[in-house]
Amino acid sequence: MAGKSDKIKANEHVLFYYNRTKKWLVKITKNAKLHTHIGIISHADAIGKEYGSRLTTNKDKYVYLLRPTTYDYTMKLQHSTQIVYPKESGYMASRMGIQSGQTIVEIGTGSGALTTFLASIVKPRGRVHTFDVDADFMAIAEKNIARAGMTKYVIMNKMDIRKSRTVPVADADAAVIDLGDPWTALPQVRRMLKGSAPMVAVCPTMNQLEKLVSELVANEFTDIECSEQILRQIEAREGKTRHSFQGIGHTAYLCFARKAYFGTKRRRTAKDPD
Amino acid sequence: MAGKSDKIKANEHVLFYYNRTKKWLVKITKNAKLHTHIGIISHADAIGKEYGSRLTTNKDKYVYLLRPTTYDYTMKLQHSTQIVYPKESGYMASRMGIQSGQTIVEIGTGSGALTTFLASIVKPRGRVHTFDVDADFMAIAEKNIARAGMTKYVIMNKMDIRKSRTVPVADADAAVIDLGDPWTALPQVRRMLKGSAPMVAVCPTMNQLEKLVSELVANEFTDIECSEQILRQIEAREGKTRHSFQGIGHTAYLCFARKAYFGTKRRRTAKDPD
Amino acid sequence: MAGKSDKIKANEHVLFYYNRTKKWLVKITKNAKLHTHIGIISHADAIGKEYGSRLTTNKDKYVYLLRPTTYDYTMKLQHSTQIVYPKESGYMASRMGIQSGQTIVEIGTGSGALTTFLASIVKPRGRVHTFDVDADFMAIAEKNIARAGMTKYVIMNKMDIRKSRTVPVADADAAVIDLGDPWTALPQVRRMLKGSAPMVAVCPTMNQLEKLVSELVANEFTDIECSEQILRQIEAREGKTRHSFQGIGHTAYLCFARKAYFGTKRRRTAKDPD
Amino acid sequence: MAGKSDKIKANEHVLFYYNRTKKWLVKITKNAKLHTHIGIISHADAIGKEYGSRLTTNKDKYVYLLRPTTYDYTMKLQHSTQIVYPKESGYMASRMGIQSGQTIVEIGTGSGALTTFLASIVKPRGRVHTFDVDADFMAIAEKNIARAGMTKYVIMNKMDIRKSRTVPVADADAAVIDLGDPWTALPQVRRMLKGSAPMVAVCPTMNQLEKLVSELVANEFTDIECSEQILRQIEAREGKTRHSFQGIGHTAYLCFARKAYFGTKRRRTAKDPD
Repeated sequence: MAGKSDKIKANEHVLFYYNRTKKWLVKITKNAKLHTHIGIISHADAIGKEYGSRLTTNKDKYVYLLRPTTYDYTMKLQHSTQIVYPKESGYMASRMGIQSGQTIVEIGTGSGALTTFLASIVKPRGRVHTFDVDADFMAIAEKNIARAGMTKYVIMNKMDIRKSRTVPVADADAAVIDLGDPWTALPQVRRMLKGSAPMVAVCPTMNQLEKLVSELVANEFTDIECSEQILRQIEAREGKTRHSFQGIGHTAYLCFARKAYFGTKRRRTAKDPD
Repeated sequence: MAGKSDKIKANEHVLFYYNRTKKWLVKITKNAKLHTHIGIISHADAIGKEYGSRLTTNKDKYVYLLRPTTYDYTMKLQHSTQIVYPKESGYMASRMGIQSGQTIVEIGTGSGALTTFLASIVKPRGRVHTFDVDADFMAIAEKNIARAGMTKYVIMNKMDIRKSRTVPVADADAAVIDLGDPWTALPQVRRMLKGSAPMVAVCPTMNQLEKLVSELVANEFTDIECSEQILRQIEAREGKTRHSFQGIGHTAYLCFARKAYFGTKRRRTAKDPD
Repeated sequence: MAGKSDKIKANEHVLFYYNRTKKWLVKITKNAKLHTHIGIISHADAIGKEYGSRLTTNKDKYVYLLRPTTYDYTMKLQHSTQIVYPKESGYMASRMGIQSGQTIVEIGTGSGALTTFLASIVKPRGRVHTFDVDADFMAIAEKNIARAGMTKYVIMNKMDIRKSRTVPVADADAAVIDLGDPWTALPQVRRMLKGSAPMVAVCPTMNQLEKLVSELVANEFTDIECSEQILRQIEAREGKTRHSFQGIGHTAYLCFARKAYFGTKRRRTAKDPD
Repeated sequence: MAGKSDKIKANEHVLFYYNRTKKWLVKITKNAKLHTHIGIISHADAIGKEYGSRLTTNKDKYVYLLRPTTYDYTMKLQHSTQIVYPKESGYMASRMGIQSGQTIVEIGTGSGALTTFLASIVKPRGRVHTFDVDADFMAIAEKNIARAGMTKYVIMNKMDIRKSRTVPVADADAAVIDLGDPWTALPQVRRMLKGSAPMVAVCPTMNQLEKLVSELVANEFTDIECSEQILRQIEAREGKTRHSFQGIGHTAYLCFARKAYFGTKRRRTAKDPD
């Protein structure tokens, strides 16, 4: 059933999967060996095997050979900044209706985890325009994006877009802000977005949410909605199904909004709807 | 700044947005009027306006004219079945690494909400192959998928794929099962998936999760993970930020897994890893 | 097995329990009838019956005759203020280690729900000293406390304790503050508490928590801990166990702390522990 | 303001509190020293100090001297079994309306954490009758209960109450079951409870909940309600308030019910209310 493309070749990335907490994302290199607590794995042994098959270590344990998804790339990302995790990035995509072909603006590239995920959706015709001021982050992000094969769908801009007189993007379909002070980017984000287009900001604290919401109103955004996404693992086993003992803690709150035009005749008052 | 495409034209779908709970998704029809508790809105008044701008009702209230996203289509879907909501569909996309260009199999079309979301990601080159036995659901789903403009990326199959000797899809990149007895579809889903490709099942009850996990092991799937996604709204307002008084209840649990090949030499035992 | 005290007598309070959302807390009055959508119930029919037994309505439905607990009194309380619910009051008791015999100070009587619960624990030798400025609330609270039989364990003080030069309580074992501006009560609460005794404040917003924590440090409190208590109902039924579709929303955040003496020699700095 | 009783004496238990994760519950012994990573603390230095005051270690760090509450005893309990934590025990108390003076039955003493908490509420006139079959657990529990000063309010029964022909308690006001198979104790629990009295079972898994609910109906209990209690810590700090990064995981589900008399004339059917 499986086509030829399912055989692992040298230089492909493979996820060696032992269990949920023990897994390794490697680039298959002919003579390389991976040393783990469950034994040694020779890369060469994986070559020619079907994706999904098992490989036995020298300690008689086995790993599954999995084709990495963007999820795997994210979870195994090299990062020097707090990244946006799948529990948030997935909801961003569904809440904003991100789809293939769109032009997305991202303020704050960070380590490129979210950039990669967004690019994987908007490709092949859409683009993610990402902005960051930090050259070191940009270098790491570039590597991460390349590893996941998304380089040609991402335009990286090493600049402080907030201080720029002109903006390099127009009619963007959506925007993401991942900055400590997301409100500072609102005027430029607004300039780059299409009318009624959605945006989201990633906010680690409640104070950021609060300040951002005020600034969104001041910048003529509507449909403002803040939320948090909680992911709870469930251990489903015959006769002893329960939630995981391991709690999943806070990562970030999200604040969504859409670009509007409030007009000039009438000022918004407290009695107006959201 | 906004391009020409931002002007609303007749026959386009527009979301009349008053607030989070009062919004109407309409197809702009020249002489139509929408009667609401906040007044009457003439469709004609929207034509030629920018997306994002306001329209005033005859009661001096206003609505925003928003270009519908897949989120809006989902939340305003005509449905006769329980649908998959964005809090789940987003995480499905990020957890499985759904991306543009993929071939997706969906068992259980239901009202087409998830079908639409998946199609919007895999287009223009990817496809969603969806299967349902119920002709009435199929008819509703077809309409919903068409309204969101996704018809050409969806192949609808009115059949019970579980009983079919042959499967019409090979090398699928991912699969979704939304059936009351998801385990019954595992053999066919397995046949349609690429090696190591991910799948997810939507399970309203814990018992379904439990039975499914056993059957996933029996059908040689690995990386099995069950979870629930909780979305909590936050009311962020200056000086009085708090969670919403309105709780968001249970919709479904999700169970993820990936197709593996266990091999024949050695049987899985309880001591093996997940 | 059941003693004589298990027979229902006139003038006792009884909970007529139909299901979780339909239940009535009534005082048994000889000639009274309760009219409900499930039929008419004659109080007289309950007299002489065992607690726990059923009573059939004239529509052939039945209710259970339950002896009200403090939980039932709270859930059926007449209230004109937001009350403290069992999901919070229970954790208050266990987190502060409230026990029988203690002296408790409560700033903000409200409708007396929490007063009743605390009194039911500290009785017969302990007391709850409760303070409120609003005579109308006090009147309602008094009635609610009386109905639950806790009057003699509660000392009600209609006064603004925050403005008082003297405090009527010393060496209290614990304190509860349920005010919009809980920090304003800290100096007096501190004066009334024993050394190292715990307190808790009920805060509907994050901003209150934030301001309160600063003021707690300024007022020499330690072991400061903020949390929220989320209660999720589970529908456990054979073969279809799941969480409730009905979500339970936000009520209040809690902030706990204990009275400390920071001493004078050395000022607290940011590097100090909590 | 603080009375004489606030001075620490030899042989009292004191909580040396450094921060939320570093705290030590010690019995003050004249010549003892506590060695910690923040330095050495001489017990003798605590004697004569006010509760709530600070003690400086030889590394110039300080701890607060706190009078232990039942919460502290629970969190610092010596235990060889899974214990019932304050997030559950508090809700048990408020949901069942546990109050001073009551007679409580506990099946499964475990390490005595819940026993201690319940005793601290029902004292001085009420009693907790606790049952366990394991002599080793009983010995540990006895020590834990004694340390918290609750010995005289607890009657310990080393026996399998489920197999006993007679029950040593009648007219209990509430019952707690903390067994792996809680349903096996229902007949005896029922015999010991007053009419309409509440009970709760601590269930680590969903399967236990499910089976228990069926058995509760079969044993003529009503007002059955299952829930889980989730505690989320909040870090409230000026300008950076957020939930804790550290998630708090699953401990147990709770199932509440009340003893009813279904009568003989009419059998319960699926159409009956809960």
